Amino acid sequence: MTRDRPFFMSTTMSETYSGMAQQYRRALLDDVVPFWERHSADRDCGGYFTCLDRDGSVYDTDKFVWLQARQVWTFSMLHLELERRDSWLSVARSGARFLERHGRDGAGNWYFSLTREGRPLIEPYNIYSDCFAAIGFGRYARAAADEGAKAIAERTYRNILARKASPKGRFAKAVPGTRPMISMALPMILANITQELEWLIDPETFARTLDACAEEIFTPFLDEKRMVLHEHAAPDGGKLDCFEGRLLNPGHGIEAMWFVMDIAERRGNRALAEKAVEVALRTLELGWDAERGGIYYFLDAQGHPPQQLEWDQKLWWPHVEALVALLKGFRLTGRRECWTWYERVHAYTWGHFPDPGHGEWFGYLNRRGEVLLPLKGGKWKGWFHVPRGLYLCMREFERFAKKWNFHHISSHVQAKNGRTL
Amino acid sequence: MTRDRPFFMSTTMSETYSGMAQQYRRALLDDVVPFWERHSADRDCGGYFTCLDRDGSVYDTDKFVWLQARQVWTFSMLHLELERRDSWLSVARSGARFLERHGRDGAGNWYFSLTREGRPLIEPYNIYSDCFAAIGFGRYARAAADEGAKAIAERTYRNILARKASPKGRFAKAVPGTRPMISMALPMILANITQELEWLIDPETFARTLDACAEEIFTPFLDEKRMVLHEHAAPDGGKLDCFEGRLLNPGHGIEAMWFVMDIAERRGNRALAEKAVEVALRTLELGWDAERGGIYYFLDAQGHPPQQLEWDQKLWWPHVEALVALLKGFRLTGRRECWTWYERVHAYTWGHFPDPGHGEWFGYLNRRGEVLLPLKGGKWKGWFHVPRGLYLCMREFERFAKKWNFHHISSHVQAKNGRTL
Repeated sequence: MTRDRPFFMSTTMSETYSGMAQQYRRALLDDVVPFWERHSADRDCGGYFTCLDRDGSVYDTDKFVWLQARQVWTFSMLHLELERRDSWLSVARSGARFLERHGRDGAGNWYFSLTREGRPLIEPYNIYSDCFAAIGFGRYARAAADEGAKAIAERTYRNILARKASPKGRFAKAVPGTRPMISMALPMILANITQELEWLIDPETFARTLDACAEEIFTPFLDEKRMVLHEHAAPDGGKLDCFEGRLLNPGHGIEAMWFVMDIAERRGNRALAEKAVEVALRTLELGWDAERGGIYYFLDAQGHPPQQLEWDQKLWWPHVEALVALLKGFRLTGRRECWTWYERVHAYTWGHFPDPGHGEWFGYLNRRGEVLLPLKGGKWKGWFHVPRGLYLCMREFERFAKKWNFHHISSHVQAKNGRTL
Repeated sequence: MTRDRPFFMSTTMSETYSGMAQQYRRALLDDVVPFWERHSADRDCGGYFTCLDRDGSVYDTDKFVWLQARQVWTFSMLHLELERRDSWLSVARSGARFLERHGRDGAGNWYFSLTREGRPLIEPYNIYSDCFAAIGFGRYARAAADEGAKAIAERTYRNILARKASPKGRFAKAVPGTRPMISMALPMILANITQELEWLIDPETFARTLDACAEEIFTPFLDEKRMVLHEHAAPDGGKLDCFEGRLLNPGHGIEAMWFVMDIAERRGNRALAEKAVEVALRTLELGWDAERGGIYYFLDAQGHPPQQLEWDQKLWWPHVEALVALLKGFRLTGRRECWTWYERVHAYTWGHFPDPGHGEWFGYLNRRGEVLLPLKGGKWKGWFHVPRGLYLCMREFERFAKKWNFHHISSHVQAKNGRTL
């Protein structure tokens, strides 16, 4: 669907939602999956090429552990949740085996990157390689019923919890004591991986950890007045007047909020869901480029010049995560704003990111929405946000189509009175 | 002078060059110096605010050692080379005292950043703080005839040489052995600071070190076919097919080349001057945005997508450094191409970077040349490239005006036949 094609002209809402589910399913199965199946597998060394140019040609062969592990996750997830395709399991296995053999240092920390053959290139300087390895091996263990993979997921999760207080270890550049600062990214990712690894955690610890994650996101990082999340804060929740302290990453804030919506849903906590939706909406409002459309990459909370030169660019993942958050938010709270924003973000996302020429989605647009880098994958864009988002949005629309909640949606439709995207 | 105003309408070349020297002098003394004198001094804590918004207002008070030390250098240099103004010496002294008191850790390494009051924030994770401290204290020692400052410059220089083999120390992220890689930035900055500190070095060591710097820039990093410098290479000069290995930073390459032109001039090495000029010109050719004008920030040597999202932006410093390199190259070799390129870069630079509204120069433009960040100073833009470049270009034009070399320049003027910028 493009910006010009309305999706509100079906005769019933149920059909509309079915149509939307179909759109997501087709993009996933007919475009995005085949592109990565075709171009990404390294049949000689195992694992994946992720540096794929516009047409899928490989322009760099280094292997970034974030992206290797996320691709293991995605293929395993699709195998578990969507269809038991042997080909998907086999792609996941190739990455899991490669990572198992080459991915960790002697202490069990996951490297940041490896050569094509698997020799370690960049030390485990951050904890996110471990986070994605945990969820990758967790899903793969279930998809393949692989005890070895399960043990790796468990060990990695324990290691993350042990490293949590000092996630950068010897690579930390901050002088201890002067300006203690914590990062929203850590409780945010823990919110996600804890839910991913539920099957490995005893129920009581699981429930307690989920509640703690939501707490650790909101208490230090939320600006209670504006209802937006800062990327960094003092450990006591004080806001810091420095570049890092003023930094807003709207895409991150919105993604974190759908992790919290998931927690709210599992825990049956309606107030938590309402809060997460409110923050996602206020973040979108603040992060939306009123002039050119799209979600800014970075902003300064006080409106000062951010230090990130890429601040005004439009990246694929904040848009994809916003679609997910808005549909989940709409389902959980029925707030009409979620739908209005969904339409706006949908129009921008589907109008700008899919590549009609070579398939798959562009990752990096400039402020005007023009393609800044034509790549389909690189050092940071792998096979993760697009397929996960397509899958989750598809599922949300399938639910809407099945049990259409008249109260939630009819009011919106009447208000829109046939207006299209 | 804007793009619309020709500078070639004077009756004689000598007058033209005088006019150009005047333009640079006015920009330096009537615009850029007063802006930083007015807005940058921290009269309570010493040192400088460098995070200055468009109108000079301070939006962040952290103190970045690169920028503190560079500002000490610039005010000391102007005091030594241009005018013995007490006010300049006093500004330099404020920064030198602040850095002397707060800038180093116990081992004499310079921190990356400090709080406004001078408490250390970010550890000495790179060696460039030390490099700028060495030249800052070196110049200040001469300007103020300060023995303590001289000792700091000497100690810092020795420390840099001792750390040269492992400049990142414990913060190095590369796994040793897998892909040894060296950085052009280090011999490049050594070429500059060695010349800065000539008065502290015995003549024989000085001459040997200068020759070694040129060698250490060209041998590993030069692509001999295209005559452009890579940012990184294998220690044996092999080109590396990875993001870092393919990276070109045209501004860096051009700036390095005027450091080498200075070496060539001191050493009376004409072949070295010709080579440096050739590389500067080929780099400009490769780095110039033929569609929108201006010098790209980063490129991939093989034309692949660079990993830097800011790759197509137009930053102030590559343009300022290109003006310096082209005028030096023109003087040293008389190559007409230097002048043709000077005109092009001059038109772009003077047409885009000076801020007619609030004075001083913008630092960050998008590909189209529109202001991306309105700041006059930040974490990386301080008071250095603009005043140094204005001063050096002024001096080059003063020389041209005084001893106009008819052979070099007349052919150009005839060829241009009265065409203006």
